[in-house]
Amino acid sequence: MSITYPGGFRAAGVPAGLKSTGKPDVALVVNDGPLHNAAAVFTSNRVAAAPVLWSRQVIADGRADAVVLNSGGANACTGPEGFGNTHRTAEVTAELLGISASDVIVCSTGLIGEQLPMDKLLAGVTGAAGSLGRGGGPTAAEAIMTTDSVPKEARYPATADSASEGYAIGGMAKGAGMLAPGLATMLVVLTTDAALDAEALDAALREATRVSFDRTDADGCMSTNDTVVLLASGAAGIAPDQAQFTEALTGVCLDLAAQLINDAEGASHTVAVTTVNAASERDAEVVSRAVARSNLFKTAIFGNDPNWGRVLAAVGTTDAAFEPDRLNVSMNGVQICRDGGIGDSRELVDLTGRDVEVEIDLAAGEARATIWTNDLTHEYVHENSAYSS
Amino acid sequence: MSITYPGGFRAAGVPAGLKSTGKPDVALVVNDGPLHNAAAVFTSNRVAAAPVLWSRQVIADGRADAVVLNSGGANACTGPEGFGNTHRTAEVTAELLGISASDVIVCSTGLIGEQLPMDKLLAGVTGAAGSLGRGGGPTAAEAIMTTDSVPKEARYPATADSASEGYAIGGMAKGAGMLAPGLATMLVVLTTDAALDAEALDAALREATRVSFDRTDADGCMSTNDTVVLLASGAAGIAPDQAQFTEALTGVCLDLAAQLINDAEGASHTVAVTTVNAASERDAEVVSRAVARSNLFKTAIFGNDPNWGRVLAAVGTTDAAFEPDRLNVSMNGVQICRDGGIGDSRELVDLTGRDVEVEIDLAAGEARATIWTNDLTHEYVHENSAYSS
Repeated sequence: MSITYPGGFRAAGVPAGLKSTGKPDVALVVNDGPLHNAAAVFTSNRVAAAPVLWSRQVIADGRADAVVLNSGGANACTGPEGFGNTHRTAEVTAELLGISASDVIVCSTGLIGEQLPMDKLLAGVTGAAGSLGRGGGPTAAEAIMTTDSVPKEARYPATADSASEGYAIGGMAKGAGMLAPGLATMLVVLTTDAALDAEALDAALREATRVSFDRTDADGCMSTNDTVVLLASGAAGIAPDQAQFTEALTGVCLDLAAQLINDAEGASHTVAVTTVNAASERDAEVVSRAVARSNLFKTAIFGNDPNWGRVLAAVGTTDAAFEPDRLNVSMNGVQICRDGGIGDSRELVDLTGRDVEVEIDLAAGEARATIWTNDLTHEYVHENSAYSS
Repeated sequence: MSITYPGGFRAAGVPAGLKSTGKPDVALVVNDGPLHNAAAVFTSNRVAAAPVLWSRQVIADGRADAVVLNSGGANACTGPEGFGNTHRTAEVTAELLGISASDVIVCSTGLIGEQLPMDKLLAGVTGAAGSLGRGGGPTAAEAIMTTDSVPKEARYPATADSASEGYAIGGMAKGAGMLAPGLATMLVVLTTDAALDAEALDAALREATRVSFDRTDADGCMSTNDTVVLLASGAAGIAPDQAQFTEALTGVCLDLAAQLINDAEGASHTVAVTTVNAASERDAEVVSRAVARSNLFKTAIFGNDPNWGRVLAAVGTTDAAFEPDRLNVSMNGVQICRDGGIGDSRELVDLTGRDVEVEIDLAAGEARATIWTNDLTHEYVHENSAYSS
């Protein structure tokens, strides 16, 4: 259940004093090979943090030997000094591991607009390098947490007994707020012992993130630091079929995405907004996202109110192909809106459970897409107003 | 201070039992001429309510003799029966006033997805027609309220002593939630005794709403019922200069828009997000709106936290022209972000007052635009989760 599950990887997580709680806050993941192929996707936010600017350069040649991550500070909007600090972090990591700084990916998460305490951070990196191990995955997953209440890990095959193709995938993720597409506010490290080149890894990673993290939208807010890295060690000596690998990787990403949305700040409901019978997958995604981002819809769900009028009001803001008088909406299986008007009684809908399924039928085609989101709660307002983060 | 301030208009507001509180809920505004020129703008939501579908047809010929409005039910997503009810409302109003149903604009506001209680509504229309008067403006403004805590009225000239060009403009508005552009969830009736034709009214109205209601964005949620109607009686016998009239009308609209945002559901701060030195007015508006819609920014303001990192994270999601390392952000006059990095101390910013001014400097041109919004509070979550509306 971790990034050290596949062969060829060691990891560590240590407390370096970046978090005031004294919990682990520096993580290190090392690919011992024989291959060092890698791919990564980053936030599309144009205000990108220093570690994102650095890591984009690192990944350009398709090779990465290590990933060093810290919580307790995003190193975003920190100017030349902040970029220098990221560079220095990569250099120190490289020296400790005997590799090149240009093969070290750096990830940071925490408050925007503060410089990192470099003395503490570099001491932490040194400590992490000294405690690397094959069992270090879970501690690394703990070290990247910010407002997460639990660490997030996933793997393929899902259990020791599951059918597999002779290789493994491991993953860890963090992210609880500023969680929206392109990508979510999150850091994700994925590892595999499959033997795939950087181009194959990149293709699989882009497809897997497109239908998982990119469709996770807790609060519509896009981070400056989002990074998803995929490292391949080749230690299994197996070159899987591209389609099969993409499917397995997508499964791991969906598992991690579900864990993120289940742990989103202050949420009391996990909501799957699925649009069906759309003219295109893009239309389905646009409609689901419009609903998932409606604060009125999200507060209604918090209040266990199956307010389908707010769903239709959100659908109506999109340019998707549909006729208003053919729209259908169901919540948890009850069709409360039929042909754009009043359907079955709202009273039949039970929203008291954690999971809510909303289905919007555009009656315009055959495509579908789901966006996973949360309700908007007092706890969300409290967590994001009471603390700078 | 009301729609009956200009010559040529009568109005009334009566309780018809649509609201459970027994407060006024049906309003009627009649233009006694001599002119009956009119213009209107409607929600761009594709799921438009029956009264919007009806009123778009009414205004097509540039003439409207009366506006009948109800709170207590939006008549949206109500199918053919709902459209029939709007049609019937216009017919009954027309019979009572001795005019054509095709000159009666209908507006409704309240819960989406419920049929209106037509017996009560038509009795209310009859009552309103019987109590029309030159002093009826304030009661009409009260009758269109939903979750509004106060009625909203404005006029030009602003006071009896203000300079004027010999004509008057009056206005009333409602709207407190589902308040966002294109247009906000609101009903607005504007009256003038100036003698302008429908084309001139339309041009002035579109320009005035573009820089006022269209830039009011309380919660990013667009309504199914938004309508802004402008009626001209010509009773003053004066044909003002188009530019001067547009300016005066814009002033009335800005006044009403400010009243809307000051009364938005649950808000504890009124926030003006101004983007300056943009390459275009469109860029400035896009950037201001992205910040105004960020839930993380809005919760930070609720917590009196000058969290400029969340401002930059929102700016970075736009396609406006800017370089990240040239961005400046000020809050209430303190420049807390300079050149994309750390500026003056956050400690210097006082956000304890109701009004907050955020200025974002893109350093990319000379255009500017302001979006008016609110903070995201416990009260907003409470009001929108505890009640179906």
